[in-house]
Formats: sequence, C-alpha cells, structure tokens
Amino acid sequence: MRRVAIALVHHPVLDAAGEIVTSAVTNLDVHDLSRSAKSYGMSDYFVVTPIEAQRELVGRICKHWAEGSSGRRIPARKEALALVRVVASLADAFEALGGREQVEVWTTGARADGMSLSMREARARIEGDGKAVLIVFGTAWGLAPEVHATADGRLAPIVGARATGYNHLSVRSACAIYADRLLGARA
Amino acid sequence: MRRVAIALVHHPVLDAAGEIVTSAVTNLDVHDLSRSAKSYGMSDYFVVTPIEAQRELVGRICKHWAEGSSGRRIPARKEALALVRVVASLADAFEALGGREQVEVWTTGARADGMSLSMREARARIEGDGKAVLIVFGTAWGLAPEVHATADGRLAPIVGARATGYNHLSVRSACAIYADRLLGARA
Repeated sequence: MRRVAIALVHHPVLDAAGEIVTSAVTNLDVHDLSRSAKSYGMSDYFVVTPIEAQRELVGRICKHWAEGSSGRRIPARKEALALVRVVASLADAFEALGGREQVEVWTTGARADGMSLSMREARARIEGDGKAVLIVFGTAWGLAPEVHATADGRLAPIVGARATGYNHLSVRSACAIYADRLLGARA
Repeated sequence: MRRVAIALVHHPVLDAAGEIVTSAVTNLDVHDLSRSAKSYGMSDYFVVTPIEAQRELVGRICKHWAEGSSGRRIPARKEALALVRVVASLADAFEALGGREQVEVWTTGARADGMSLSMREARARIEGDGKAVLIVFGTAWGLAPEVHATADGRLAPIVGARATGYNHLSVRSACAIYADRLLGARA
C-alpha cells in the first residue's frame, strides 16, 4: 500500500481564455481537501502557490487551527489541517517527498485528453507497492498543459452514469471523489 | 431510472453539543452541491432553511447567476444553479416533488447508527423504477434524529479503505462522494 499525497496548484493554471494565470487561495479548499485527505489516509496535502503573501495566509490559517481556539473547539479539524504543507511550486512538493525520482505524479482534469490511467488501474497501482503517489489538482480552469506533460500519468476524468454532458465539479468535490474512487472502501 | 434530488438541511441539525440548532447558509455549499447535482443528472437541489432572510440571500445569489454578469461569464455555473430550490422545510421539498407519499427519502450521516441502506443496494434501487428519491444532507454536526426517524432509509456512511478512523468530510465532499457512488459511471 503506497503513500498517497495530494497537491492543489494555484500556478500554473488556466483561466477561462486558456491563458496561464495564478489563482487565489480559497479558504474552504484548505479545509475541505485536508479533511478528505485525512479521511482517506493520505499523508500530505500540498498547497502550491508562488505568491509569498498567499503562502503566509495559509500558514496563518493552519497555525490558528494548530494553536488557537478553533483547534480546541474542533479537534478533528486541527488533525486534518496538520496534513497541509505550503510550498511555492510543485518542484518543492516533490522535494518534500524525497525528490522527483521518488514520486509518481498523476494529474487530474475534467477532460480526457491524453488520459493514461483508468480509475481501476490507478487504484490497483496504489494498493500495490512502490514509491509515493502525488495526485495533482488544478484550481481555476484547470492545470496548465506543462503540468500534465511532465507528470507520470493523467487520471481519467470523473463521469456520471447518466451522461449529462455536464462536467463542472468544484475542485473540492473532484478531490473528494478521486479520493473515494482510489482509496474508498468497496463494500 | 428514477428521479433523484438532494436537500441540504440547515434546520433541524445538531451542534457540537448535540443540541438542535439552525445553521447559516454557506455560499460555497450552494455552488458546490448544485454543480455536483448537475454533473450527476439530478433534478433538484433543495436548500432548506426556516430563516426567511437566508432564503432571500440564496434567492439573490441564484438570481445574480441567472440574470447577472456572472452567468454570462460562467454559463456552466448558471446551469447548475438553476437546479436550486429554496424552501423553508423538508415538508416543502416533499411538496415540490409531489407530496411525501411520492418521494422515497434517504438520509445521510457520518455514523452508521440505524443505517439501513448499503451503497450497493441504494444504487440498484435508483437504477430501477419507482418514485423520486430525495437524498438529505445535514449541515453543522449533522441531521437531527427526527429527520432520520421520519426517512424511508438511512444510507451507509462513507468509509475509506485505509481504516483511518477519521471521518470528518465536509458536506460538500460528502455530497459529491454519495453522488458518485450512487450515480457515477462504473468503468
């Protein structure tokens, strides 16, 4: 059973016009993704932003929960937020996991372009042995092509059974669903 | 294939001490649950709150997306928010679906107390024929016992395969995972 971590990328991501931008950190992303990560037994949640003021903001949020009154009020939240690692780039996340060669990097997205890993295969790989897996999520309109291009695999998009043709989940929802598909108990 | 709707309840729900309270509406809940509902082909998303000012707030958010500049900027979001129905009580949600006798009501929660429906069975039931299914989610510390007691079934809680013992997903994440387990495409 391999170590699994997630990263939420705020740069480089796309905007509605397909340009590469840096998105702002959303407080509820910090909470929701850490709660999903903790519930499914992941080891780390990397919040990736090159903007120092945003990294400081996330650091303050986490410190508030680690040391302040909220952590005493909701201890479970404190436990989840303890998984958060604030980094300036994906390269820094790789370093934190032992270096790029020690990590298998899988990207996610709403489209299937260049998709290389079915949910079933990804789940089987995680259940086997091997290096740490880092699952990478994009904010805004999704990860920039360069992130997909340098990954080791691209996970299949999430699709409903009713073929609605509508696929616009929030990143909070998408992360929760990938966690469940890859690490959820199958009764 | 049955009609499936969701409801997000702000009263009656529990607080940390187990008392029955009314929680405040969270803007991102309105967005995230509507996006999940739309992506998985659900028909309606009932936002349930007895507080008139909160119902007006949700109405303003939805109107802004239906008619304002944001809906032109992100048309997909407008489509999702069109599923939102703001009601004062679960009874009003039942009425909107044709009356309590016309609806099969399933509650959700982080604990398995009184659980009566496995994910597998619930999925099979949805794929069959029958009346509309309303899946009910609680905010704060979860639905009050009376909501579970008057439902037709209680869905199994979401559990990870790694048996972390930690089960504190956000309602945004929980709703997304239930949607995927019950209505997701199984490759």
